[in-house]
Amino acid sequence: MNGAESLVRTLVAGNVNVCFANPGTSEMHFVAALDRVDGMRCVLGLFEGIVTGAADGYYRMTGTPASTLLHLGPGLANGLANLHNAKKANSGIVNIVGQHAVYHIEYNAPLTSDIEGLARPMSAWVKTSPDAKSVARDGAEAINQARRGKIATLILPADTAWNEADGIAQVPADKQQAGYAADAVEQAAKILRTGAPTLLLMTGGALTDKGLALAAQIAGKTGCKVMGQTYNPKMARGRGRYSIDRIPYVIESALPILKDFKHIILVEANDPVAFFAYPNKPSMLKPDGCDVHRMTAGGDNSVAALEALAGAVGAKASDAKPQTLVELNKPTGALTHASIAQAIAIAIPENAIVVDESVTTGRGFFPPTAAAAPHDWLQNMGGSIGFSTPVSTGAAIGCPDRKVICMVGDGSAMYTLQSLWTQAREKLDVVTIVFANRIYQILRGEFDGVGAGQPGTRAMDMLTLDRPNLDWVALAKGMGVEAVSVATVDDFNKALSDAIKTKGPRVIEVVMTA
Amino acid sequence: MNGAESLVRTLVAGNVNVCFANPGTSEMHFVAALDRVDGMRCVLGLFEGIVTGAADGYYRMTGTPASTLLHLGPGLANGLANLHNAKKANSGIVNIVGQHAVYHIEYNAPLTSDIEGLARPMSAWVKTSPDAKSVARDGAEAINQARRGKIATLILPADTAWNEADGIAQVPADKQQAGYAADAVEQAAKILRTGAPTLLLMTGGALTDKGLALAAQIAGKTGCKVMGQTYNPKMARGRGRYSIDRIPYVIESALPILKDFKHIILVEANDPVAFFAYPNKPSMLKPDGCDVHRMTAGGDNSVAALEALAGAVGAKASDAKPQTLVELNKPTGALTHASIAQAIAIAIPENAIVVDESVTTGRGFFPPTAAAAPHDWLQNMGGSIGFSTPVSTGAAIGCPDRKVICMVGDGSAMYTLQSLWTQAREKLDVVTIVFANRIYQILRGEFDGVGAGQPGTRAMDMLTLDRPNLDWVALAKGMGVEAVSVATVDDFNKALSDAIKTKGPRVIEVVMTA
Repeated sequence: MNGAESLVRTLVAGNVNVCFANPGTSEMHFVAALDRVDGMRCVLGLFEGIVTGAADGYYRMTGTPASTLLHLGPGLANGLANLHNAKKANSGIVNIVGQHAVYHIEYNAPLTSDIEGLARPMSAWVKTSPDAKSVARDGAEAINQARRGKIATLILPADTAWNEADGIAQVPADKQQAGYAADAVEQAAKILRTGAPTLLLMTGGALTDKGLALAAQIAGKTGCKVMGQTYNPKMARGRGRYSIDRIPYVIESALPILKDFKHIILVEANDPVAFFAYPNKPSMLKPDGCDVHRMTAGGDNSVAALEALAGAVGAKASDAKPQTLVELNKPTGALTHASIAQAIAIAIPENAIVVDESVTTGRGFFPPTAAAAPHDWLQNMGGSIGFSTPVSTGAAIGCPDRKVICMVGDGSAMYTLQSLWTQAREKLDVVTIVFANRIYQILRGEFDGVGAGQPGTRAMDMLTLDRPNLDWVALAKGMGVEAVSVATVDDFNKALSDAIKTKGPRVIEVVMTA
Repeated sequence: MNGAESLVRTLVAGNVNVCFANPGTSEMHFVAALDRVDGMRCVLGLFEGIVTGAADGYYRMTGTPASTLLHLGPGLANGLANLHNAKKANSGIVNIVGQHAVYHIEYNAPLTSDIEGLARPMSAWVKTSPDAKSVARDGAEAINQARRGKIATLILPADTAWNEADGIAQVPADKQQAGYAADAVEQAAKILRTGAPTLLLMTGGALTDKGLALAAQIAGKTGCKVMGQTYNPKMARGRGRYSIDRIPYVIESALPILKDFKHIILVEANDPVAFFAYPNKPSMLKPDGCDVHRMTAGGDNSVAALEALAGAVGAKASDAKPQTLVELNKPTGALTHASIAQAIAIAIPENAIVVDESVTTGRGFFPPTAAAAPHDWLQNMGGSIGFSTPVSTGAAIGCPDRKVICMVGDGSAMYTLQSLWTQAREKLDVVTIVFANRIYQILRGEFDGVGAGQPGTRAMDMLTLDRPNLDWVALAKGMGVEAVSVATVDDFNKALSDAIKTKGPRVIEVVMTA
């Protein structure tokens, strides 16, 4: 058994059963091993950003790491932006990058680069296997890291893949049951008992059905407010679930919401900070004199901590207050942000996975979709656009029985449009809704936000995606995905209904004129 | 004048007149400055790999650096693969990357990452401007570096862009006239005078019309052999120019060609090394006992050195031996690698720029195109695929009066297909010929080459681009570029002829069945 096969067998033994790949010469022995080892589904992406983003989506939906397979430094480089997003989502990935044979590196062939240097900014763990006999053991350690929600980059020189190995490595037992710090919960309970204006700011593992239900009880009992971060890796939403607001992206909207809190209790969440800096606006969104307390961090068991907190403050199921949801009415008339939101809320099927990169178009999607059928809502954690179509791809691989609805602006979709081909090849059940406003609309707002005045002709050319307009029906067709373009809300309703009914990938281009 | 404007004005004063851009919030003040400063053409790319690759192509064709404008760490990350290729081509780029405002970095907002760490592997020079008053001076130094063929990464925190600056910086005078080491030329002459079997291995600035003509005289006079590297940034080719072979990519083909040389004289070239390592094959391609001598390196004036060398060995224009070129006949019948090569050789118009990422399909293109009309031939120097459509974009911006012919395999074209949109928006005169063999054919060969045996079903799934086939006519249409698909050589002849006659971007999909 060579090093590559020892690695593939170690991965499978460690329940890493999916490999998202865009291999090259130095990875051919890994690819060859796939034919000899059962239990690994290998999924080709035609660009590395698809590969890493899919691994992010897979982890978010299954809690289990996938591996990648990338070709040398430039292959890794192409995958880094979505590794960045995955890292910020605490998504574990066994990120495998081929390297030249150890003895070949000194010759500085064209593809030679500093792979470890490239990997470090987006990885928690980086290791180059020194020889074939180390590969399985290093792979096991990478699995161990990835299971804890880390990006573990394992660099695999070609000769360590083709030379003889010792066999598979002992894979550590699945990750330990996570815990939480009891004193942090006690501290949170003490704050809540004071009755001072307090925000429970939640993300990560707290945003499950159960975590949200516990938060509802705690809020009902203590009068605290519960919110989610602006962006969250996965949030259980829809009818029957406790609906919470998120901190608004726009600073001017966030500040008034936060201004009266005396305490913020963080449940996995980060401090509430502005996404960007703006002249004469604060970076930290909490008001002066507001104390921030961390109850749990990423990797903790936040649901157990919330259960303990509910117990400590004496909150029971009956304390949860009923919520009034937005009424859903099938929209007619013009295609507006509001009618689009209603149409989507009505269309979301039970147990759907909604991947949200709708940016400006989707700023009003949250209230109506709280009244939709129960679903999970995934967002971009690292802010690097082009996350949603790859994450949708990986989510669909991880959850083949659930409909994936990817909502994406045209600007964002262009970064990683190659996802559509993988969705076609793997027959994934993903509806991609492209909001074609033909502008980086968020930047039009940010231009004002940073005090740059009114954009003139040359500046506007850098913000617009028109001249020519992109044709998403053609782009989808080019990658083997059926598509339709809609310009009225009636057509959008019909397209959504058709796409939800039918299994397999679809694209709906929504041509925005407002 | 704020920092951003001081930088844009410094760039223009330093003859950096084109900015390839994909900006975000932190770059809005730079974008705003474009409206206030004349003399900068700003070109939008819908993915950062387009931006950096275009800057590479622009430098190769004009010898003048362009700037980029990239958004934070992930924006830089998306551009790194083509920065890698540019670095290996010795293409100078003023690579401008936005950063959060200095005071905002500590808050670890979602887009925060180690930008300097990401930049270093692909840059010769990296600097984060500390304040607005430093920006112009740092920009001038970046120009200075880029003029010497270096990737100079200037990181621009948002507050250094919006705060008040002191004005533009003194830009150093254009780069000094390059020289060469006279003793290295004398050493080369001494070797050539011995009559021992010697290879003059050339790349970079040596491969101009004049450099090649001098090499022809030296070869005629001394009996040495002249070859190019396997890959070269730009080579003058076509009728009336001295036609040289390149060292073959495949090791088994390269070794017999090199085996009898006692000396290799490097004219900017690197040592002849294998592109990849393979089990039981050498990394160094020169035979044992062959001495390697460097005559010039990147940045030297190789044409002047060749002139001196010709003088030293007494070579005159009349020493150049006439060459027999392949006969060009308009091909008919089946679409084969050979007939495609003939069709392209006939179609290349006078003074065309040919960008070659045809990979396996194009391995036989060199001999017939030596008989084509005079043209320049650009290749991938870093081996990261997806280089050709962005480099073609930048070459067309740099040389608006020359037809650009981009030849690219379908696998490679998918990495950076967003180039087509920029070509449409800027109305660039680029014909992109996509060879649709629906497989990473090179990897099929490499699979054998590394001794991985015969690929089974799962391995073949990682090598093929079929199920579904890509439709390049639709993909091009989706980005506003007219396209045609051909499956016969007659249709290919006609499509080429139409595309050459018409100004503006075109795509020709060549469906390969052999």
